[in-house]
Amino acid sequence: MTEAAPDLISFALGLPAVELFPQNAFTEVAHAVLRSNRMALQYGPPCSSLKSQIVELMHRRGVDATEEQIYLTAGAQQGLSLLSSILLNPGDIVMLEGANYPGFMEALRPCRPRLCPVPTNLLTGIDVDAVQSLLEEGISPALLYVMTEAHNPMGVSISNENRERLVALAQRYGFMIVEDDAYGLLKYDGRPDRPLRAFDSQWVSYVGSFSKIVAPSLRVGWVVIPEELIGPFSIAKFGSDLDSYTLTQHLISAFLDEGRIWDHVQYLCDEYRRRRDIMLNSLAAYFPSTARWSCPSGGLFIWVELPEEFDTAALLPIAVQQQHVAYIPGDSFAVDRKGRFSNCLRLNFSNSPEGKIKEGVLRLSRIFKEGEIPETEKSLCVHA
Amino acid sequence: MTEAAPDLISFALGLPAVELFPQNAFTEVAHAVLRSNRMALQYGPPCSSLKSQIVELMHRRGVDATEEQIYLTAGAQQGLSLLSSILLNPGDIVMLEGANYPGFMEALRPCRPRLCPVPTNLLTGIDVDAVQSLLEEGISPALLYVMTEAHNPMGVSISNENRERLVALAQRYGFMIVEDDAYGLLKYDGRPDRPLRAFDSQWVSYVGSFSKIVAPSLRVGWVVIPEELIGPFSIAKFGSDLDSYTLTQHLISAFLDEGRIWDHVQYLCDEYRRRRDIMLNSLAAYFPSTARWSCPSGGLFIWVELPEEFDTAALLPIAVQQQHVAYIPGDSFAVDRKGRFSNCLRLNFSNSPEGKIKEGVLRLSRIFKEGEIPETEKSLCVHA
Repeated sequence: MTEAAPDLISFALGLPAVELFPQNAFTEVAHAVLRSNRMALQYGPPCSSLKSQIVELMHRRGVDATEEQIYLTAGAQQGLSLLSSILLNPGDIVMLEGANYPGFMEALRPCRPRLCPVPTNLLTGIDVDAVQSLLEEGISPALLYVMTEAHNPMGVSISNENRERLVALAQRYGFMIVEDDAYGLLKYDGRPDRPLRAFDSQWVSYVGSFSKIVAPSLRVGWVVIPEELIGPFSIAKFGSDLDSYTLTQHLISAFLDEGRIWDHVQYLCDEYRRRRDIMLNSLAAYFPSTARWSCPSGGLFIWVELPEEFDTAALLPIAVQQQHVAYIPGDSFAVDRKGRFSNCLRLNFSNSPEGKIKEGVLRLSRIFKEGEIPETEKSLCVHA
Repeated sequence: MTEAAPDLISFALGLPAVELFPQNAFTEVAHAVLRSNRMALQYGPPCSSLKSQIVELMHRRGVDATEEQIYLTAGAQQGLSLLSSILLNPGDIVMLEGANYPGFMEALRPCRPRLCPVPTNLLTGIDVDAVQSLLEEGISPALLYVMTEAHNPMGVSISNENRERLVALAQRYGFMIVEDDAYGLLKYDGRPDRPLRAFDSQWVSYVGSFSKIVAPSLRVGWVVIPEELIGPFSIAKFGSDLDSYTLTQHLISAFLDEGRIWDHVQYLCDEYRRRRDIMLNSLAAYFPSTARWSCPSGGLFIWVELPEEFDTAALLPIAVQQQHVAYIPGDSFAVDRKGRFSNCLRLNFSNSPEGKIKEGVLRLSRIFKEGEIPETEKSLCVHA
């Protein structure tokens, strides 16, 4: 990677800010647990205190769940992987947005499904009209995948009306929604809306994670799943990694037990909101008026659409080498046809200190100069 | 479970001894890492310092490996699961011993293979004559699974001659051996022999683990695989859990860096050897002379064969309720036909303090009284 350049400003990877991790508190907690509880190093069943803390966390998120509906996983990714493995047979149809999280594509790969992409609206999320049309045409998905809050890569959250419509469609047509809520607690404007799981416990499987609100390398996430999936999920989890209680489950449980998590989440939201606003203001100040971008109310990413003349993949080496700034080209997120998002890019705002964001966007704007491109579109941006 | 009885002596689960964990040293190491290295909490590639330490560990184990051939996994179980997923298509043949580790059966399950069981010799391990006959008959396995050292549940290690023969068969017939060496460093009599991977780097995929030599809840293991599997393994690992560097990889690396691992392994071997010897001596003292058992040179288990009249599954509730002692019945390890090992049981010796082992075997002997059973067989036991 060229990211080693000393003055490179990277908006590329989807990293939380390392300087915001609760390092001191977590170090204390880890010391206390390891010193006092030898059993935290032994094999054992998944950490039950953490499950009951997740019940409380889900309650604050607007979802009533029981400990029996919760499974602890190695991050959200394992939740996506195991759910795919128990829900899909080869050739089954998966409905999903055309610009999507590449990790979900990798989770799907061993299941060899057929993909049915649908568009995303940058203001209201997954295009529910398109979903409904496909269902009415007789397309019968085994699974529909959505990120309800702060979509990766597009940054958009699904509107409340569309949440209700999606769940109603799942109920009517009988397919499972896999709801990825990895960013649901990082909400910068108002309170997060209720996730899909709050509307239905039979047709929605919810995937959550501590990676963005505590720290990623702990590899602790969870799923909230329908009763009838509990048996198959348990078998798949055991075969995958023994489903043993892990040290990091115990450490997170002790950290939550201290009660500092909600102050920490508030702190993260305040910091990330500031970074997001600087990026949005910088885009408005420096980017061509023909560009459009999403205004995320949470999460880590802003999605930028440039006029079709721009090829963001071809321009990336120039951005890195000449301007020392990095991003991910839109086509890296295309689930099927490459070229569909060749004029788009994803920008991460969480992992750059405030002072670098404005400078990075200014540098990028030199790559995406207006030149001859007509000013036909207005920015989607609605400042918060 | 009935294991909650206060005076229950359990020889059932395959647990390392919690009182032997390097708790103090590990607590210090964890504190130092967390306090000084914020990046240990971030996403990142698998821990490269740990890979290079595993190269050294494999060298001491008699295997030349490069960092590029090593993948870090969530315990040995994830190694078995991911290898199965990349090596097997539905309907492929897996050759394996008829009494086997149940976790491997669960790792295989999503791959839907056909199983081809072969017998085990309690002195020399997997019956290589039987393997050869099946191959000569035209059975063409995609994968053969073995535990080279201290087989679970049977406690036997494969003889050196049979190691060489197995590898030669894999080379001649072109199938992959998956070698599970989870117990390879817990060797109580002499040095461990070289694993199969030492004889061949193309037809042997090696699976190792820190669960038994450091602590299980860290969930860190590794595989050493042929070059051509590196790409597929990497893809499967990423889809499964992002293949991100985990905190526990970093903690184990720091623990190994302190250089205390080999003293610790020696300490474990000394303690476990003592427990094994007490169990072997107690079996010789109390068990009927018609019983036979393996004499493991390592690992955690002794396998006992009683005369066929005994049904160890039916007798387990009596053992637990009347004698307050637990074991795993042999049929729990049968990969196909139940009833094949109905007169057998697995005893764990690592997880009971010395004082309990003699008492537990004495209690068990009251369940397995000779009675009318003829004294036709001698114990296989050859005391170390």
